[in-house]
Amino acid sequence: MLGRPCRTGLPELEPKVPPDHNDIVTRDKKVITCRAAVAWEVGKPLSIEEVEVSPPKAREVRVKLVATGICRTDDHVLRGALEGIDFPVILGHEGAGIVESVGEEVTDLKPGDKVVPLCIPQCGKCSSCLSPKTNCCLKTHLRESQNVMPDKTTRFTCRGKAVHHFLWTSTFSEYTVIPEDAIAKIDDGAPMDKACLFGCGFSTGYGAALNTAKVDPGSCCAVFGLGGIGLSTVLGCKAAGASRIIGIDINKGKFKKAREFGATECINPHDYTKPIQEVLIEMTGGEGVDYSFECVGNVDTMKAALEACHLGYGVSVIVGEAPSAAQLSFSPLLLFTGRTWKGSIFGGWKSKDSVPKLVADYMAKKIDVDGLVTHTFPFEEINQGFEVLRSGKSIRSILMF
Amino acid sequence: MLGRPCRTGLPELEPKVPPDHNDIVTRDKKVITCRAAVAWEVGKPLSIEEVEVSPPKAREVRVKLVATGICRTDDHVLRGALEGIDFPVILGHEGAGIVESVGEEVTDLKPGDKVVPLCIPQCGKCSSCLSPKTNCCLKTHLRESQNVMPDKTTRFTCRGKAVHHFLWTSTFSEYTVIPEDAIAKIDDGAPMDKACLFGCGFSTGYGAALNTAKVDPGSCCAVFGLGGIGLSTVLGCKAAGASRIIGIDINKGKFKKAREFGATECINPHDYTKPIQEVLIEMTGGEGVDYSFECVGNVDTMKAALEACHLGYGVSVIVGEAPSAAQLSFSPLLLFTGRTWKGSIFGGWKSKDSVPKLVADYMAKKIDVDGLVTHTFPFEEINQGFEVLRSGKSIRSILMF
Repeated sequence: MLGRPCRTGLPELEPKVPPDHNDIVTRDKKVITCRAAVAWEVGKPLSIEEVEVSPPKAREVRVKLVATGICRTDDHVLRGALEGIDFPVILGHEGAGIVESVGEEVTDLKPGDKVVPLCIPQCGKCSSCLSPKTNCCLKTHLRESQNVMPDKTTRFTCRGKAVHHFLWTSTFSEYTVIPEDAIAKIDDGAPMDKACLFGCGFSTGYGAALNTAKVDPGSCCAVFGLGGIGLSTVLGCKAAGASRIIGIDINKGKFKKAREFGATECINPHDYTKPIQEVLIEMTGGEGVDYSFECVGNVDTMKAALEACHLGYGVSVIVGEAPSAAQLSFSPLLLFTGRTWKGSIFGGWKSKDSVPKLVADYMAKKIDVDGLVTHTFPFEEINQGFEVLRSGKSIRSILMF
Repeated sequence: MLGRPCRTGLPELEPKVPPDHNDIVTRDKKVITCRAAVAWEVGKPLSIEEVEVSPPKAREVRVKLVATGICRTDDHVLRGALEGIDFPVILGHEGAGIVESVGEEVTDLKPGDKVVPLCIPQCGKCSSCLSPKTNCCLKTHLRESQNVMPDKTTRFTCRGKAVHHFLWTSTFSEYTVIPEDAIAKIDDGAPMDKACLFGCGFSTGYGAALNTAKVDPGSCCAVFGLGGIGLSTVLGCKAAGASRIIGIDINKGKFKKAREFGATECINPHDYTKPIQEVLIEMTGGEGVDYSFECVGNVDTMKAALEACHLGYGVSVIVGEAPSAAQLSFSPLLLFTGRTWKGSIFGGWKSKDSVPKLVADYMAKKIDVDGLVTHTFPFEEINQGFEVLRSGKSIRSILMF
């Protein structure tokens, strides 16, 4: 499943045979030509193209991807719903791969290391990285463009045109170049088709419960949306010792797996005439839930999740990413009366420090993410993977190179 | 300054001589006729009327008010901006007085005790009272009507009509009846014209910084609105050890006092062409403040206060009460990217437990609230007190009975 080797200007290797690490090392500092899924413009399917990937510059790392998940945030970009993304672009931010070569001044990674690219970097120097309160490094695309590398250039070209990076990860390419602040070395034994989940979906949901909400043992939680991030949030609530985890989804097909992951009840808003937040308040003796999590990215659901919280101390966490232009209208009395509204990006994990530990916990069987993967496609079938995502039938689709 | 005695059916006492406690005790269980400021309908001035105040029922206490502050929340009701308030009503919720008599089953209060009515009760039994996370007792008007007593009747009549209570306090009356869960005994030596501030304004702002935001030592805070609650918030930030406290108001006349209270800088949005949140972000090296407090009750200011916060870990606290119908529209990405939005009602203090301690701290000179009082009026001039409030010239106006 490691896919065909890319063309590098060196004699072509046999198809279907993965390059060994020695081979990779020899290509250090050369331009690599390989396959990538290029998004040329909004609203169009991805195009599998031959792209050129430049060698890593100082403090950069070139990675050969092995597996990548497809996340709704990628789809937001394809639909034009995220601002500040320049096209053409190579998307993808939930990958796992092997270091092919490293640029100057990179000391903590070497060719052959198994790695997970980090869509939220950890520079270690900014006020956020120096604060114990947040993982939201000021080098993120939320403050600086991760659409180009730190030196404001790209490492990708296709058909003679520069192609943009996405979140510095661009995992929809056989090879990608990543700043060292946005890449984590993981356990050598980690299976790559699962390790990639730690680059976004699993970590985001799991950490939202543990780090952002800091769910108390014995508490009552509601999780809106039972996709990959929602189920990971359920896992986090369970790990935190929640005694009641209510899963909410308009697709009943997701309830069986949600219960396997730890949901104690599952409800479908379509089964009720009253708003789902009122249903939740009734289910909790008229008081509301202790914690709610919005894992959809929809402003109406975000508002319902806040309203479902306990007066005085309910905490609602926005985990799903809304389209950039979305505006949410609500009564500020909901906050005035003691509720707390927070957001969670990458689950509050300081990425470079935490991903290796999370993967180690997976290897030690403390965390089980295997059930999150429902579909696996060869990389070339990436557009089919997006179709499955949009259909709501998948939890996580993984592409294998 | 204790005002003229009320008419009780007993022989009238000399005007301007406060009744002594023995006299008060003899009137136990009788209807008291006294002065009160009745709000007959929205948009009309208050009317000083002769009202009848019934004796306290079980678990209720009748209090002779000595002083009461005028708060913007009272004005919201007069303007019809708070929902669920029935007229006619006796407003007022920032008072200090002396227990006149107690109903059956009241064990912790006796005639002659100095007390502060509590606009947020502390029943001690509900899920909020039992939680260490909140002060927002489920007996508040936010869940049950405090417009009538717990038995759904009123203790006030005027011109043959029942008159409603407000927040169970109704301090705009010489005598009022209050459930024991909404009244705190304070130090016998406390000056009543200052003690009343602990019933709302001071406690609300001071606690917003200490309890709700939990301001860190060395942090940077922004306080929007430098009225009584804003200045009390400044005091709270200072007490928490904030190194930078930026006061914001469109009235420069408030800056001198704000600096005396602890503001390190004061800025006027009218002095800038760009939005004030952008000014604050520039003032903090492009990063935003650690904590912001909205002490105005305006949705635009609430949004600006959130936007002024540090990406990743900034905390914005809504302290000002917006009109009930107000809706706030914002981008949920502001939360998604790690900011936290909270509200603070009565500063997060568990009221019955905390007000006595706060007053004790004042008596021990650990807290200085004296500067908050800028105007004092005899009770009869209550409408003048509201005019001064609306003019923006006062910090706190106190009415003396």
